[in-house]
Amino acid sequence: MTPGNVTRENVTREDVAALDAADPLAPVRARFVLPEGVTYLDGNSLGALPATTSTRMRAVIEEEWGRSLVGGWNDHDWVGAARRLGGRIAPLIGAAPEGVVAADSTSVNLYKLIVAALKARPGRRVILSEPGNFPTDLYMADGAAWTVGGTEVRTVPAERIVEAIDGEVAVVLLTHVHYKTGYRHDMAAITRAAHEKGALMLWDLSHSVGAVPVDLAGCDADLAVGCGYKYLNGGPGAPAFLYVAPRLQAELRSPLSGWFGHAAPFDFGDDYAPAADIGRFQCGTPPILALAALEEGVSIFEAVNLDAVWAKSRRLCSLFIELMDARCSDFGFALVTPRDPALRGSHVSYAHPHAYAICQALIARGVVGDFRAPDVLRLGFTPLYTRYADVWNAVDTIAAAMASGEWDQPRFRVRAAVT
Amino acid sequence: MTPGNVTRENVTREDVAALDAADPLAPVRARFVLPEGVTYLDGNSLGALPATTSTRMRAVIEEEWGRSLVGGWNDHDWVGAARRLGGRIAPLIGAAPEGVVAADSTSVNLYKLIVAALKARPGRRVILSEPGNFPTDLYMADGAAWTVGGTEVRTVPAERIVEAIDGEVAVVLLTHVHYKTGYRHDMAAITRAAHEKGALMLWDLSHSVGAVPVDLAGCDADLAVGCGYKYLNGGPGAPAFLYVAPRLQAELRSPLSGWFGHAAPFDFGDDYAPAADIGRFQCGTPPILALAALEEGVSIFEAVNLDAVWAKSRRLCSLFIELMDARCSDFGFALVTPRDPALRGSHVSYAHPHAYAICQALIARGVVGDFRAPDVLRLGFTPLYTRYADVWNAVDTIAAAMASGEWDQPRFRVRAAVT
Repeated sequence: MTPGNVTRENVTREDVAALDAADPLAPVRARFVLPEGVTYLDGNSLGALPATTSTRMRAVIEEEWGRSLVGGWNDHDWVGAARRLGGRIAPLIGAAPEGVVAADSTSVNLYKLIVAALKARPGRRVILSEPGNFPTDLYMADGAAWTVGGTEVRTVPAERIVEAIDGEVAVVLLTHVHYKTGYRHDMAAITRAAHEKGALMLWDLSHSVGAVPVDLAGCDADLAVGCGYKYLNGGPGAPAFLYVAPRLQAELRSPLSGWFGHAAPFDFGDDYAPAADIGRFQCGTPPILALAALEEGVSIFEAVNLDAVWAKSRRLCSLFIELMDARCSDFGFALVTPRDPALRGSHVSYAHPHAYAICQALIARGVVGDFRAPDVLRLGFTPLYTRYADVWNAVDTIAAAMASGEWDQPRFRVRAAVT
Repeated sequence: MTPGNVTRENVTREDVAALDAADPLAPVRARFVLPEGVTYLDGNSLGALPATTSTRMRAVIEEEWGRSLVGGWNDHDWVGAARRLGGRIAPLIGAAPEGVVAADSTSVNLYKLIVAALKARPGRRVILSEPGNFPTDLYMADGAAWTVGGTEVRTVPAERIVEAIDGEVAVVLLTHVHYKTGYRHDMAAITRAAHEKGALMLWDLSHSVGAVPVDLAGCDADLAVGCGYKYLNGGPGAPAFLYVAPRLQAELRSPLSGWFGHAAPFDFGDDYAPAADIGRFQCGTPPILALAALEEGVSIFEAVNLDAVWAKSRRLCSLFIELMDARCSDFGFALVTPRDPALRGSHVSYAHPHAYAICQALIARGVVGDFRAPDVLRLGFTPLYTRYADVWNAVDTIAAAMASGEWDQPRFRVRAAVT
């Protein structure tokens, strides 16, 4: 059996074991520390812990900071850490190394690039996005519009985005893979449509990078941001990254014109003069400990074949959908995510009126996915450490939890602060 | 002998040893890891490593992230980490716990509060500061003015700040203790002057917090930011903090309206509604690893008498100046920092035409201070871990390096990237 030949009639646990046995990425799982007894299908929210992170962090703390103290800025090139790490993220998103820098949070980076785009298109007053985009994207667009003034955030449903790009639009802001539905936009087509109307295109790659192919240069994309703590496994609240096409770097200015984006930060001059390169999109002093943790996550990708990563993502998701079709079709789940792998990312979502309680019941059985309001059960498949057997086990557990009705207990219905 | 009785005629190495023997903070040095053979007088640039940070980081990485994975947001209250740490920083700056949050970098926090102030004073178009303020303060003011439009950064020398506050000024932005000169502004008087003219007052506490007394509430200050990696010992590029007077929190809005500042971030709604409290000045997902490292630094202050910290800062600086007077007065150093402890912070600067090379020669002898362009040798005295004997040793080393002329070598004259 090869993936793609899996059908609802014939998949067995043995078939799934054979997929794992043939998986070229199977050894990569050992590069992560995963708790016993947990089937972790939420790496799209918070990636798992790389096996080397703790040791690396200790070295940075004890040997770099502890021994070099302030000398670490030179001795260990902390000054260059953000650009260096950006260059290592670049191959995952089809970018030249000089196009990417690791910095701040995804939210802060969105603001930098939205304002830079608005200022670069002074006659245009619209930030175009879609309703239901990841909240911080819309919130930061709102904050950017409020700061600049006379500017509007306009949202139209995904299927009408292209036709909505007109001469008023300064920048189109979309998340490549939707955090809730898993729908993947056609990056090349929408970028082309934006350019045809003179708008800049800003992609949020938070739910793409490290799981699905991204070709920023090939799509001639202008701007992008992405998250460090999902598929890049940089740890909770890890630094994010941003991309500015090299052709635009001299033209665009960051509103967050901090000293680390200055052409000569250690001259301590009064006047701001941005660095000539991607460094101008840095702001404050880079977070050296956090960057080191993120670097451990990113470095794992350098030892694997990226085409194998993308292929495994597709197969994991397809297998999950096929097994759900076969074993859980009677329980009221409605598939939200597209069946076509070309139209989705690396997570799969189902709507269910009791999604919250079901999610909690699954967690109690050791299958960790998450709930997204109001009614979505979301399961993420991280190619580096998810096994095909985990997919089997997840569906097995969902089927058991639904058949038993065990999810319908008060303890599973009480909402925690974060889910 | 008690400090204050020290005069250039009578200070001996034995006197200095007696100061250390009587120092109530002497045991606190053991809470840091400091390299052998180094007299570290640059904690005002990058604080030293707390002895517990490495262990704490390992626990957060391995036990919290590694075991709880995404559940850590609830299990370990990562959601509340930024507010919690803000509340622990508050006593160091005379603030109520609900006035402070740890977030982002000093630069990013400056931007949030400058824009918030400009928007809260819509008829006023001036950000008032002083020339030679720490560069990122001026650069971020410049970026804020550029984003908002129709706004100007006006700088006047420190001694004319009060008279320059007029009805055009929306916000006065000053660094409490000047990074280069060590001059300390009169926070109460300038804040009062700003309020008399209807302006908001924003203090940068980066070179104050953890070394000199700050009484934000007592001064009725409006806004403040501060650095986590200097006297707070949070590690290179540690998260910063910000303060907004509780009376202003409902009125001021952050331009960086990220999802972690939302009233209900996990409802995932399209519309931004800021949290009612200081949380609205958070932006993206908080950096959990970096916050944990900073917390280790901050926690040390909770075990010590803060009045003893402030007193030791004054005494260390006074002793240094007195010993320099006594032993180095023939070498061309010109004291830049005020002699009056009420007018300075916890670092002391001397101008010297060969300051860069002298600084390098001192580092080669294990005395680590820093150089600030164009001609300043700056030495910082961190009350928690600097010994009076370190002050003696520093002056002894300066005297020897100057008397021998050893600083005048090509290897000490070549500028490194960061100094």
